[in-house]
Amino acid sequence: MTQQIRVALFGTGRIGQVHAMSLAMLEEATLAWVCDPFIEGAKRTAAEYGGRVSDDPDEVFASGEVDAIIVASPTATHVDLIEKSIDAGIPVLCEKPIDLEITRVDALRAKAAATDIPIVLGFNKRFDRHFVELRRRVGADEIGALEQLIITSRDPGEPPAAYLPQSGGIFRDMTIHDLDMARYFIPDIVEVSAQGANVFSDAIRQAGDFDSTVVTLRGSKDELITIFNSRHSAFGYDQRIEAFGSAGLLHVSNKNDNLVRHWGARSVEGIAPYQNFFLERYAEAYRLEVAEFLRAVRGLPYRNSGFEDGRAALILANAAEESARSGTSIAVDLS
Amino acid sequence: MTQQIRVALFGTGRIGQVHAMSLAMLEEATLAWVCDPFIEGAKRTAAEYGGRVSDDPDEVFASGEVDAIIVASPTATHVDLIEKSIDAGIPVLCEKPIDLEITRVDALRAKAAATDIPIVLGFNKRFDRHFVELRRRVGADEIGALEQLIITSRDPGEPPAAYLPQSGGIFRDMTIHDLDMARYFIPDIVEVSAQGANVFSDAIRQAGDFDSTVVTLRGSKDELITIFNSRHSAFGYDQRIEAFGSAGLLHVSNKNDNLVRHWGARSVEGIAPYQNFFLERYAEAYRLEVAEFLRAVRGLPYRNSGFEDGRAALILANAAEESARSGTSIAVDLS
Amino acid sequence: MTQQIRVALFGTGRIGQVHAMSLAMLEEATLAWVCDPFIEGAKRTAAEYGGRVSDDPDEVFASGEVDAIIVASPTATHVDLIEKSIDAGIPVLCEKPIDLEITRVDALRAKAAATDIPIVLGFNKRFDRHFVELRRRVGADEIGALEQLIITSRDPGEPPAAYLPQSGGIFRDMTIHDLDMARYFIPDIVEVSAQGANVFSDAIRQAGDFDSTVVTLRGSKDELITIFNSRHSAFGYDQRIEAFGSAGLLHVSNKNDNLVRHWGARSVEGIAPYQNFFLERYAEAYRLEVAEFLRAVRGLPYRNSGFEDGRAALILANAAEESARSGTSIAVDLS
Amino acid sequence: MTQQIRVALFGTGRIGQVHAMSLAMLEEATLAWVCDPFIEGAKRTAAEYGGRVSDDPDEVFASGEVDAIIVASPTATHVDLIEKSIDAGIPVLCEKPIDLEITRVDALRAKAAATDIPIVLGFNKRFDRHFVELRRRVGADEIGALEQLIITSRDPGEPPAAYLPQSGGIFRDMTIHDLDMARYFIPDIVEVSAQGANVFSDAIRQAGDFDSTVVTLRGSKDELITIFNSRHSAFGYDQRIEAFGSAGLLHVSNKNDNLVRHWGARSVEGIAPYQNFFLERYAEAYRLEVAEFLRAVRGLPYRNSGFEDGRAALILANAAEESARSGTSIAVDLS
Repeated sequence: MTQQIRVALFGTGRIGQVHAMSLAMLEEATLAWVCDPFIEGAKRTAAEYGGRVSDDPDEVFASGEVDAIIVASPTATHVDLIEKSIDAGIPVLCEKPIDLEITRVDALRAKAAATDIPIVLGFNKRFDRHFVELRRRVGADEIGALEQLIITSRDPGEPPAAYLPQSGGIFRDMTIHDLDMARYFIPDIVEVSAQGANVFSDAIRQAGDFDSTVVTLRGSKDELITIFNSRHSAFGYDQRIEAFGSAGLLHVSNKNDNLVRHWGARSVEGIAPYQNFFLERYAEAYRLEVAEFLRAVRGLPYRNSGFEDGRAALILANAAEESARSGTSIAVDLS
Repeated sequence: MTQQIRVALFGTGRIGQVHAMSLAMLEEATLAWVCDPFIEGAKRTAAEYGGRVSDDPDEVFASGEVDAIIVASPTATHVDLIEKSIDAGIPVLCEKPIDLEITRVDALRAKAAATDIPIVLGFNKRFDRHFVELRRRVGADEIGALEQLIITSRDPGEPPAAYLPQSGGIFRDMTIHDLDMARYFIPDIVEVSAQGANVFSDAIRQAGDFDSTVVTLRGSKDELITIFNSRHSAFGYDQRIEAFGSAGLLHVSNKNDNLVRHWGARSVEGIAPYQNFFLERYAEAYRLEVAEFLRAVRGLPYRNSGFEDGRAALILANAAEESARSGTSIAVDLS
Repeated sequence: MTQQIRVALFGTGRIGQVHAMSLAMLEEATLAWVCDPFIEGAKRTAAEYGGRVSDDPDEVFASGEVDAIIVASPTATHVDLIEKSIDAGIPVLCEKPIDLEITRVDALRAKAAATDIPIVLGFNKRFDRHFVELRRRVGADEIGALEQLIITSRDPGEPPAAYLPQSGGIFRDMTIHDLDMARYFIPDIVEVSAQGANVFSDAIRQAGDFDSTVVTLRGSKDELITIFNSRHSAFGYDQRIEAFGSAGLLHVSNKNDNLVRHWGARSVEGIAPYQNFFLERYAEAYRLEVAEFLRAVRGLPYRNSGFEDGRAALILANAAEESARSGTSIAVDLS
Repeated sequence: MTQQIRVALFGTGRIGQVHAMSLAMLEEATLAWVCDPFIEGAKRTAAEYGGRVSDDPDEVFASGEVDAIIVASPTATHVDLIEKSIDAGIPVLCEKPIDLEITRVDALRAKAAATDIPIVLGFNKRFDRHFVELRRRVGADEIGALEQLIITSRDPGEPPAAYLPQSGGIFRDMTIHDLDMARYFIPDIVEVSAQGANVFSDAIRQAGDFDSTVVTLRGSKDELITIFNSRHSAFGYDQRIEAFGSAGLLHVSNKNDNLVRHWGARSVEGIAPYQNFFLERYAEAYRLEVAEFLRAVRGLPYRNSGFEDGRAALILANAAEESARSGTSIAVDLS
């Protein structure tokens, strides 16, 4: 086998851990650097998965020992780290969103377009085998022309109150994944309409955010895509997609860990609630996402979302926010 | 048993036939009059189900031999026939919509409010045992507070082109049933947002109507209700409701006539497509609707939709049309 | 319409009531006589469904006012009533079994074969639309050659202890229905093997009967048919058939009255337990069975089980009993 | 971490490959020896997974470099290799069956009982997470007393004709896995009844074997366990278990790789056929089986089947064969 790809990981929070774990399972890569201003986090991660430790990104870039960058640090640092990666000519996988401000994204856009290095976004759902197969079958014309797409995405429970102010709001924090999924099926979106509601969480209301939303997108061929989000779900992580076409329908239901069904005096055919949360539900997808990024690093064809996908998702999330606040549909131009 | 209720049926089209058949199954009522300006239709219906024949509503009202009215004639005649029923003091079941013009409905409103006779609307889905049970379980607090309601309603195929101009458009013709269902769960709606699309039918496009729509309503407690409509469905009549609450979810899936599932080399667990269309899917509901109306005629408590429900559904349909055309959410006041 | 068929009903217990109700729904027949030595039962039934009352079968046969006989009286009376029907030249529908003794059945066999009148057996499951469709699809070669057939049949609860001694035992009382179903798919059975067990009921054990059984039949083409029976089922009446063939599998699952499924914190996708018992589960089948018998009475083609089917089911039930007691497979010859 | 366990693998056929792959995924073990008289097979396996190569078991045992043995060689070699393992004091995992002759098994029995080393059998289904969970829930009293157990096990296609003579027949080759599963739920079996049939395969018939079987076991508490086997299945590997108890039922259905369901004009709700065969269906179970054996090697508690389980399964398989040939139930004593 060729030499291992030396990866630098920025950020050692929850999603940083996920990527470190994925790297550990992939023989073709090694964790070379772990960088976090919270140096204890970096040390802990390096202790488990290997790599040198730093609290200074410049030290990492200056080392000359990095073949690939994974950015899992707070959103505000993303643009800088992508820019440094471009400048250093090192492929980078950056978590969503690129930034909360479209102006900062646009400022980087020309540079991102001009570089040869892969800049990929951390939209893991594109690597879920069920959604991949759903899209393949839509593409294979099993249901004719795609007319309506319905994405249901509900989290088991609301995020910590402390996280809310920095989340960027439900559309940029949570819906953004589903907006990218919408574009996975129908890339060219021309209009966004959204409703936000506050039905259960005082903390979310006080943060000025919504706890429940419905977003309807219009594709350039007049397809209608609807996304249901809720910040809680009593029965576990709820992740479904329905694709309705002129010749039929394809549906991905929730995944249950165990096949046992129960018949009893009060209820029959019941199964255990769905897998806990995204770390479990998308464990394989996260691994495939990083593996695919490593293909990109090697110069092979890859299917990760790119910078333009990240920008598009942010534009759609911003439009959803604006629509939900204003009560009007927002025309968008992703080109 | 007490004396049979003498029913006069106005209109002998498809839905008129349904009601005639329901009456034939209900021992407590008899078809006394069949009235249709297309006298051959009236004669044919009377030949099968009994009753005197007329092409003149006034003759029917003047006969003094009518205890209950069922209005299944074209929409434009509804207001007049309801008014005549009020004047004659005869309970009336009228098909939806009351009228395509809210002004005509409002002109009748005070009179409808002032009368003692039951005026009920033909919203048959409220009598579907599955939806009734769904609502009962929502009411029994099985899923906590109702937060999101999702109604899917797709017809097997588009209506005849000739019908389109008089249909009043998809919102007033088709969505109106689902708008009433929304209010069956959440009566107090305060906002309507809608998207219309043209994805498959040239005839519908040429009629200036949409073939696919998504409507999102907001309840007074910030509940979000979404209705999916399509004028076609390759796999048959698609009628589902999902109720998402703070403590769980209840779902009514499509009904299949036959329990046989098939396992083969290319597909497993498949069943036969769903029942043909509303006449089959809601056969029992239509019967229960008329039976419940007969309770109303007898002065017993009843649960049919009333005049105000019919008016509310029309207001919501009109708002959906306006929203789909303007791209803005429409505030509504159903009081 | 032609003249109504005048039916005499013998026996007014539970199954007699079912047939009286079916007749009341069928316009082409009328209940002319209700005969039961327990005259109060006869009177009560006649009061509800019409007909003259008698406690003497001979009075009924002598009246000359009977076009069809339904025998729902105790098993011991069946042979006599069938014979009287043959002598009187009146078509007869008789509940299973013909008798508990094969010798009495065989004594009647030649006479039954010689008559022109329809003698049909009350095997209602042959009229269940789901099983009928399953058989049609097997016959339409959807699964190739039928190799294994698995019939599951569990009652909600054990019968009253007082009924057990006269039941003839589980094989002749309960399994017999499933044995006929087996022959509905594979008429020519050549071998019977059975196991009986006592796992829950002291009353059944004390009656010398089994509460749980497994019967395996062999068809003449070496097909294997297995029947699971239990006298109780905590989740309701359990009625399923699996047909495994060389090219696939067809399965009829249990029927649920209501389509609502529930998702909660402890269990998801659960539905309400199945319909109570055979009166509910097979309500339509009972009606169709009698309707089909009326076709027979009119001289039209019919598909009810006949005398030979009733004899075959009893032979199989007896063989099952013998096998369960002896621990050996029993060869049978149904010809 | 402690030192790696050095494993010697005997046999490099299909199942030998599976175990080699499992070892490769388990960090705590290393493949030290690969032994096969077909030396090319040994070399190929060692090239991929490591280890020294030999065609002589004695060389392996004499090397002193082995901590654990995995026996995946032909059945006829099992007893010798187990005996050598005992003599060498090295823990051994042996594929089923121990031997085709119970006399050879019994000859080894006292020695196996006297040794301290773990002797475990390759019954992989005991490590399937779904069956494990099913058994846990039965043990947790979710369905009361277990009364009927139904195991369905159908292979996608018949084995090569050349394999049939050495297979030992369907009961010792295929059913034996399900017999062990039966004992996983109900260890104490007292009676075996079996039917064999030839419905599709000339090759199997010519080999004097059955292609389809039904086996019914009786537990010491009168539980009835039924096993359905077929050597082919048009829709893929069919692996299900139904546990019926006094208070309910638990069921493990087949596992499908992908959650996508399809709705079309001719069939709705269908999914892709099940995973190919045991290597895919039980991939995880095989890994867990070896991992658990490594626990045994380390002296930790383990839950693999042992020598007595292997003997019991063979006794049951032999009894099934005898019953199927003789038409009588066979009493067994597993103590």
